[in-house]
Amino acid sequence: MSILIKNVLLDGKETGIYIEDNEIREIGAVVEAEFVIDGKNKAAIPGLINTHTHAAMTLFRSYADDMELFKWLQTKIWPLEAKLTEDDVYWGTKLACLEMIKTGTVAFNDMYWHAKGSVRAVDEMGLRGILSGVFIDFFDMGKRDSEIELSDTFRCRSFESKALELNKKLVKEIKNLENERIIPAIGPHAIYTVSKESLQWIKEFSDKENLLIHIHLSETENEVRDCEEKYGKRPVEFLEEIGFLGGNVVAAHCNWLSSEEIGILKKYNVKIAYNPVSNMKLASGTMPYSDMKNSGLTISLGTDGCASNNNLDLFESMKFAALLQKLAGNDTTIMPAKEAFEIATIGGANALGLNSGVIEENRLADIILIDLKKPELTPNYNLISNLVYSAKGSCVDTVICDGRILMQNRIVKDEPEILENAERVAGDLISR
Amino acid sequence: MSILIKNVLLDGKETGIYIEDNEIREIGAVVEAEFVIDGKNKAAIPGLINTHTHAAMTLFRSYADDMELFKWLQTKIWPLEAKLTEDDVYWGTKLACLEMIKTGTVAFNDMYWHAKGSVRAVDEMGLRGILSGVFIDFFDMGKRDSEIELSDTFRCRSFESKALELNKKLVKEIKNLENERIIPAIGPHAIYTVSKESLQWIKEFSDKENLLIHIHLSETENEVRDCEEKYGKRPVEFLEEIGFLGGNVVAAHCNWLSSEEIGILKKYNVKIAYNPVSNMKLASGTMPYSDMKNSGLTISLGTDGCASNNNLDLFESMKFAALLQKLAGNDTTIMPAKEAFEIATIGGANALGLNSGVIEENRLADIILIDLKKPELTPNYNLISNLVYSAKGSCVDTVICDGRILMQNRIVKDEPEILENAERVAGDLISR
Repeated sequence: MSILIKNVLLDGKETGIYIEDNEIREIGAVVEAEFVIDGKNKAAIPGLINTHTHAAMTLFRSYADDMELFKWLQTKIWPLEAKLTEDDVYWGTKLACLEMIKTGTVAFNDMYWHAKGSVRAVDEMGLRGILSGVFIDFFDMGKRDSEIELSDTFRCRSFESKALELNKKLVKEIKNLENERIIPAIGPHAIYTVSKESLQWIKEFSDKENLLIHIHLSETENEVRDCEEKYGKRPVEFLEEIGFLGGNVVAAHCNWLSSEEIGILKKYNVKIAYNPVSNMKLASGTMPYSDMKNSGLTISLGTDGCASNNNLDLFESMKFAALLQKLAGNDTTIMPAKEAFEIATIGGANALGLNSGVIEENRLADIILIDLKKPELTPNYNLISNLVYSAKGSCVDTVICDGRILMQNRIVKDEPEILENAERVAGDLISR
Repeated sequence: MSILIKNVLLDGKETGIYIEDNEIREIGAVVEAEFVIDGKNKAAIPGLINTHTHAAMTLFRSYADDMELFKWLQTKIWPLEAKLTEDDVYWGTKLACLEMIKTGTVAFNDMYWHAKGSVRAVDEMGLRGILSGVFIDFFDMGKRDSEIELSDTFRCRSFESKALELNKKLVKEIKNLENERIIPAIGPHAIYTVSKESLQWIKEFSDKENLLIHIHLSETENEVRDCEEKYGKRPVEFLEEIGFLGGNVVAAHCNWLSSEEIGILKKYNVKIAYNPVSNMKLASGTMPYSDMKNSGLTISLGTDGCASNNNLDLFESMKFAALLQKLAGNDTTIMPAKEAFEIATIGGANALGLNSGVIEENRLADIILIDLKKPELTPNYNLISNLVYSAKGSCVDTVICDGRILMQNRIVKDEPEILENAERVAGDLISR
């Protein structure tokens, strides 16, 4: 299909954007197209990219908040997760995709249980997904059950030694789909839930299969302390030592990095997913953005799951990102609007290896249109400033992903059906 | 006029709310009314209350961001403010009112130049406004011009010795309007811009005229340091000494308070306006909420002006408020959703002396309806959690203030005209 977006504001000038198949083919010319979108009073910007999500956790939205972290996980989140089915994950991810479309996100990097449900949801919803399961082995590789100290909550999930096979199978199934929008990845949860041996296997497997690795890293101060006690090293140093780091690793959070660790991450070209909202809600810490930025690291933006955010609106996350850094650094000039916008667009594309994140000829046609006739975008001296500091996802009018229109005039196909089913499975889940 | 909101969710139960004139008359019964609103799939909550704004600064939205504070004020904000006319303030405040209505705010406490323009705008837009001018004398009471060190920017405003008369006149004009929604107040800018003599006159005048006093207090660390140098005391101690404090004082910011100062504020029942978004964007500091809450202070929520926020959405501010406190206190249980919701509703009503902030019989009919059929509000295990952590102003469907419907199905009267005129005066202002 071909699409022409005519008379749309792009980088401050009114122009036309011509899309053929899944690519931006021409900017500027007025070309005949099968489908024409009137861009009057709208601005075209790259679709936003969310580099750290657990999409189906939409089902836990508002279920448990304001609790002490471990009590929250142990008494609320983990018991529910243990009961999840693939169908739950399917509807939870459909809800997440709906919310992402309605707030201008076109691509996301996901790690979650029953990922086959996520795959099916993303396939139907038309977004771009880098999808992985949650790889957790709790250091039980080759050990007997009795040697492993696990809570009953964990035990009931029966991870024992199956993680490798399950992940191999998932990657193969996704590849067999031959859907360019759905990209398999491998999601080792964290250094405190995955053994050294599994991390090394993951590194080898991902190199061979050309996969991204999605991992939580140095999210809390405790994680660093525990790592130092166990391995005598800080987390990034440990990962370097075991040969895990590389340009295909997307590390989420990175709140507690020494300057040496920032240097190591840069050396291996590790990609960073910054999650300011989750970090604040869970009181995890503040990512040392300025030092990381100055080191030349690729930094992108994530929301984290809805249990710790509680929404998937990257416009909101851009604002949190910039404002948190200003306050923490006691400097109003840190992370200006342009940088906040970049981590949500080109930074995300670079982190995930996507040919998007900017509107240029020969890039993927992942474009969103902003409705400029909004009180919160008036006046409009500086669009990027307005997008970062004043807009919300509700300012998005139209979403195009991979050359297909997923939303126009804020209407997304099947919205009532998705809301109804997500509500139903969420209700079932807590009463199960 | 009488209004019945039928089948609406209120505190978890479906019910009817009957409004007569400007009051909530009955909850629960189905009463015949002149106008019926179908509340199906909607929740009724109190209209939000913004206790610190400079509404017409909407005109500066996106004009200057990410700058060092003093450079920002000196080269960007003050020069523009010096050029403002009453007509600019009128349209800027109309735009602010439009944005507030569309994000569920029904009442606000404003301090701005050319306040007659604000009065006219609020009168027309139907909100409840506590309105004051900006009282600044730069310590020039009784001094000759040559003795006052003012920048040209300030000098051109000609404050000299006129502040008292201008404020007296404004209060009288507002009282003469006899519009219950528009309440005069007096707005001494801060202890570093207003002389001791003027502060004492303001206290006396406000007691006599039964007015609220709206002041910036201990916003930055510099303010505290300067006060200590000048008066040998911290700001709150200084204000106590000169007899300024009382239950009619609404103090905005309060980021840098000693525990003694918290005790003094409580002793005089001073009301607090917390502005987390502005405090983060300007890197001003973090209000010691927990200690203030524990002392029993009345705490409310403000956005501050659009130059330092850059929007007026109190839903967003609730989330920033709660998350900032959790991170700063390194404790996920600080400011749970319920408290964040309270500072934006009943806390605001108590701060401003309004008989609203909660939906009960015999309260003012200041009610908003939330559209529950939104992805970001699905599932809905806990409405307050969803409102604070996931909702935005765009979830508001209907706004009723003083028994009048200001928005229904997100439609506000004259929206295109207001946007157009605000854009026009903003354009004129920077080219003037």
